[in-house]
Amino acid sequence: MKGKLLSFTLFGESHGRAVGVLIEGMPPGIKISVDEMKKELERRKGIARFSTKRREPDEPIILSGVFRDYTTGTPIAVIVENKDVDSSYYEEIKNTPRPGHADYPARIKYFGYNDYRGGGYFSGRLTIGIVIAGYFAKKILERYGIKVRAYLKRIGKVEAREISIEEVFSSRNPYCPDEEAFEKMIEEMEEARKKGDSVGGVVEVVAINVPPGLGGPHDEDIEADLASAFFRIPAVKGVEFGLGFKFAEKRGSEVNDPFVIRDGKVVTETNNHGGVLGGITTGMPIVARVAFKPTPSIYLPQRTVDLERMEEIEIKLRGRFDSCIVPKALPVVEGMMAFVIADHLLRRKAWEDFVG
Amino acid sequence: MKGKLLSFTLFGESHGRAVGVLIEGMPPGIKISVDEMKKELERRKGIARFSTKRREPDEPIILSGVFRDYTTGTPIAVIVENKDVDSSYYEEIKNTPRPGHADYPARIKYFGYNDYRGGGYFSGRLTIGIVIAGYFAKKILERYGIKVRAYLKRIGKVEAREISIEEVFSSRNPYCPDEEAFEKMIEEMEEARKKGDSVGGVVEVVAINVPPGLGGPHDEDIEADLASAFFRIPAVKGVEFGLGFKFAEKRGSEVNDPFVIRDGKVVTETNNHGGVLGGITTGMPIVARVAFKPTPSIYLPQRTVDLERMEEIEIKLRGRFDSCIVPKALPVVEGMMAFVIADHLLRRKAWEDFVG
Amino acid sequence: MKGKLLSFTLFGESHGRAVGVLIEGMPPGIKISVDEMKKELERRKGIARFSTKRREPDEPIILSGVFRDYTTGTPIAVIVENKDVDSSYYEEIKNTPRPGHADYPARIKYFGYNDYRGGGYFSGRLTIGIVIAGYFAKKILERYGIKVRAYLKRIGKVEAREISIEEVFSSRNPYCPDEEAFEKMIEEMEEARKKGDSVGGVVEVVAINVPPGLGGPHDEDIEADLASAFFRIPAVKGVEFGLGFKFAEKRGSEVNDPFVIRDGKVVTETNNHGGVLGGITTGMPIVARVAFKPTPSIYLPQRTVDLERMEEIEIKLRGRFDSCIVPKALPVVEGMMAFVIADHLLRRKAWEDFVG
Amino acid sequence: MKGKLLSFTLFGESHGRAVGVLIEGMPPGIKISVDEMKKELERRKGIARFSTKRREPDEPIILSGVFRDYTTGTPIAVIVENKDVDSSYYEEIKNTPRPGHADYPARIKYFGYNDYRGGGYFSGRLTIGIVIAGYFAKKILERYGIKVRAYLKRIGKVEAREISIEEVFSSRNPYCPDEEAFEKMIEEMEEARKKGDSVGGVVEVVAINVPPGLGGPHDEDIEADLASAFFRIPAVKGVEFGLGFKFAEKRGSEVNDPFVIRDGKVVTETNNHGGVLGGITTGMPIVARVAFKPTPSIYLPQRTVDLERMEEIEIKLRGRFDSCIVPKALPVVEGMMAFVIADHLLRRKAWEDFVG
Repeated sequence: MKGKLLSFTLFGESHGRAVGVLIEGMPPGIKISVDEMKKELERRKGIARFSTKRREPDEPIILSGVFRDYTTGTPIAVIVENKDVDSSYYEEIKNTPRPGHADYPARIKYFGYNDYRGGGYFSGRLTIGIVIAGYFAKKILERYGIKVRAYLKRIGKVEAREISIEEVFSSRNPYCPDEEAFEKMIEEMEEARKKGDSVGGVVEVVAINVPPGLGGPHDEDIEADLASAFFRIPAVKGVEFGLGFKFAEKRGSEVNDPFVIRDGKVVTETNNHGGVLGGITTGMPIVARVAFKPTPSIYLPQRTVDLERMEEIEIKLRGRFDSCIVPKALPVVEGMMAFVIADHLLRRKAWEDFVG
Repeated sequence: MKGKLLSFTLFGESHGRAVGVLIEGMPPGIKISVDEMKKELERRKGIARFSTKRREPDEPIILSGVFRDYTTGTPIAVIVENKDVDSSYYEEIKNTPRPGHADYPARIKYFGYNDYRGGGYFSGRLTIGIVIAGYFAKKILERYGIKVRAYLKRIGKVEAREISIEEVFSSRNPYCPDEEAFEKMIEEMEEARKKGDSVGGVVEVVAINVPPGLGGPHDEDIEADLASAFFRIPAVKGVEFGLGFKFAEKRGSEVNDPFVIRDGKVVTETNNHGGVLGGITTGMPIVARVAFKPTPSIYLPQRTVDLERMEEIEIKLRGRFDSCIVPKALPVVEGMMAFVIADHLLRRKAWEDFVG
Repeated sequence: MKGKLLSFTLFGESHGRAVGVLIEGMPPGIKISVDEMKKELERRKGIARFSTKRREPDEPIILSGVFRDYTTGTPIAVIVENKDVDSSYYEEIKNTPRPGHADYPARIKYFGYNDYRGGGYFSGRLTIGIVIAGYFAKKILERYGIKVRAYLKRIGKVEAREISIEEVFSSRNPYCPDEEAFEKMIEEMEEARKKGDSVGGVVEVVAINVPPGLGGPHDEDIEADLASAFFRIPAVKGVEFGLGFKFAEKRGSEVNDPFVIRDGKVVTETNNHGGVLGGITTGMPIVARVAFKPTPSIYLPQRTVDLERMEEIEIKLRGRFDSCIVPKALPVVEGMMAFVIADHLLRRKAWEDFVG
Repeated sequence: MKGKLLSFTLFGESHGRAVGVLIEGMPPGIKISVDEMKKELERRKGIARFSTKRREPDEPIILSGVFRDYTTGTPIAVIVENKDVDSSYYEEIKNTPRPGHADYPARIKYFGYNDYRGGGYFSGRLTIGIVIAGYFAKKILERYGIKVRAYLKRIGKVEAREISIEEVFSSRNPYCPDEEAFEKMIEEMEEARKKGDSVGGVVEVVAINVPPGLGGPHDEDIEADLASAFFRIPAVKGVEFGLGFKFAEKRGSEVNDPFVIRDGKVVTETNNHGGVLGGITTGMPIVARVAFKPTPSIYLPQRTVDLERMEEIEIKLRGRFDSCIVPKALPVVEGMMAFVIADHLLRRKAWEDFVG
């Protein structure tokens, strides 16, 4: 994710030495706690029952850019070593691309040189770096009172009810403020798991206390930058803000949010626009929804092609698969959102000093 | 839209001297016809009845980068002068932000210095530059046999039926291959128009003959780059690829596209993935849907705030409004898609020469 | 010149419709005067006697980004139309690359599609855009008390004496504070002119009141960014800071600038380092020297190759040539320096707000 | 160093866990040998007698992007762990900035949060990453027959004689083809060493077999990109191409290189232009000179300021210093040049496929 003042780059492969992230542009003086970072990484492991059996400690090693618990202002490299690795199976299937996975297009893009073991650079494990980058970004937001929180909006057929912003931030359930729906979501995932299948879902993510004036039209559009960041998360196939696709069915008169004065401040009475108008934050909560496809790794037999022999075959995958990756995605989606907002916030400060 | 090898930047304001685009990275030797360019711009005017009455000739003036009808390889600047302009009304409403418009956040972002007349840099008129950039990009794609086509998938309550890729490209209706649905869409727009209201919609856009191997995971993700480009189009609030949000309800076993061999080539039997897996094109058609909110300019009374007096008021807008901007958006969406694909295609060529 | 927060892009060709510049990232609220801008452009015309006879009014037309004399914060496009143009001669010589010019490599780079008339996109006329971008950048610097000034350090064999920073900024001579040397420089240029020849030179450029802490090591190095900007000026073949190449002959003990306290502030007693240590400004004046080769357009016979017939020939150029372009380069060098400093200054503000 | 298709980012601190580099955009299929890489790193240690006593094994650990000895096409992270580290002394001097070092401006830029031990991110040790990035870049150039070689042009008062391109590439002396001058350079360094002083120098770097047509005017200028890269090397204070600063004293008639035909190819008879005209390669050898200041670390007493007490003091540094860093810089300068050329070469390939 390359912003203007903040960027991060993921590196590493699932079965290589390590996965990691290099973060550029992070200001100095941010207090860092490896324990906090590990808590965020722990969230990325999701709900044990529906997650891959690969359960390593995920110990972040800070290689650079942090000195005596504070960021230095120079590039921050953090890695997590890979330990629980067994690559033998991937040799077997390297010529039979798994349906729904990147195996086939990756083979073409990289002319066969990519590390195909465990998905290599495409592995969900790379999202560790996103969570770490998000951890740093959240520290910037914290200083300005901005909070970001993601929860499960949908798993398979089960959708959570409408949830107020207050509820999102006060809920104790780490996955979904709607406890009732959450139980059904668990069932949905359980059912998929039992069948050797997988199931998709939708994450809703909300940011509050974002000042108005971040972003801009066209090249500076914060909605576009957020969408771009979300789509870089593996398995994401849809992104919408505010009413999103529902806008398409509506009349202007139904969805234009009236401006009103509340506590002496200009706000909108409703938030159909999801906190962004014309690519610029309005000061209302930013609300986005991110759709995940069911993880393509399933135990059921599937049809594919043996690329060496060029013949159609059936495969039945073995290994350790998530039946649903959406719960694991919550800190990843938050991390992406935090990072993009932090980048725009820093840009904004330059203008504020100059014009303000 | 800043790509790695191809970029364009929009400039100009609705009521300023001109709107335009500066395109960087376009290779030399592309044959250009101003007449063709004008035809694309003509499409951007949409269906007369539902479009703003501002109907200028939109004559593109090429300032640089084209010599004797061929691109030179240096930056291309094209402008369209603004002629049919009346700014008086905007003085009246400059302190009363129009609901659903960028007026309010723009005022904050630009500390009150923005050109608010006719939306300024936020005006839909700026999409002229996107269509022009898209015109050049399509010329690159043409050389490799790639075609891009957008059509109306939904207007308000009316959704077009499932349409095959062949139909998309063979249809003579410039707006929607489903003639029956199109008639109902017209009614939907007509109804909104009569009420002084506006209506939203969804554009589906398809690219065919895209070679596999464009894009990449994470920073190179072509889906993320496309989404980023689409969200930069004014009024876009949602983007999805393939099954998109419907993926969330599905099981992996239902939606994983099996690989098969057809005419000696590896393809997928279905195209739920919409042409991109792991951020990389698979060679299948790229299929995206882009949701537009109803244009916020309506004739009905609306509530807002007088920012000088800090009091809530009611406004009733006057002027020339589109009742539906979605038909006008078709060449804009196509232009964005063509531009992003062209950028990735050029990048690909560098590796092909080196590795291939 | 692409900075992180400020960028500009030159466009146009010498014998096309116009030359121009698109500036991105300029903050809103900067008061602009076209008259002032024209004065800067006037400086770019140099000393009449030694400059090309092409003397057009160079009237800047602001297409966008300025509203009622203030920058709006959106992209600024400014063009100057080309009027005094005669392209016939360039048809004659299009297959015989002029020695020292970009004709030959340009033909290869652009596969023969470049606009070769009057140098096309390579023309010195493109520096108009640099001066305009510099005009805006200087406005930013002004607000922070930073001043930039360039003067002739050398023309051919004549070098100006050591000139104090105070003298640089108080001198009334627009070309060189050393009046005596300047007279000899005039003679040097006159001599070249009479012989139908051209002569090179060195520009020294100084920025004062630059706060310490701009720039950074490696990717943020302000010296590297300045050098990069200077080398983008046509005909530049060398750049150095502080003692520059003379450093190579020295011992550390001779050139390490001692830190001292003056008026309660930490400064260096000498300024061998030229205001930048480790890529970061120290608060001392930034001092750079930029070497220009003699403009390659001369009236003397020269040997070259007819690329169509592939035979060696002799050519004698006709046309309107500068005998020395260095005096014209002063506002161009200043413009580049101002732009780079302004970009770094804005970046700095973001951190100051966050950490400070 | 951020190119368009190839970038690298340095990370790590002198006394932290490791120093390293993240390389993006490297194509797949490049065969890598850690032994070769170590040989390049060995060159970076310079001549033992004049180099810091810190002599660690510098074992590169490839964290990502290489699979079974071939690049995969995904980001390449390589680190070298820091072992021979003693930081105690830096606590003593952290408030007394060393003259000529970045200590003082770094303290301001980073608000005191930077890792000051051993220079932190400013340490010469960071150039390990440049050499590694250069190693990969040279592999790209190799495939196209391009070679890059740097040698000592000057150490202190001693300048090497004019050296032909052939000699540069055939010489067995790893530092300077002019053996006689090299002996005197050794004496120059020895003299500085004995006195506890340091000495500067100039590196000349040459690239051969570079095809014409790389680079471009303005934003694409390869000279500007090379200069930008060279100035990012610590201690560089000047860069010039071809005749460089000598151009300033010359007449056009003396220095314009005539085009001639040799072996059926268009070349220039002389190479005053140093291989680049108008920002584009001509096919002639690229010749640049890079000036290094004497390393500021010396054993002689120096004046500086105690920043806590705000008083002027005298310091006498202890530690392990290079008396001359220029010999160590040879692979660093080569690495930078190779990387920039490789980036431009890859960009070129995209156009060649399209236009050619």
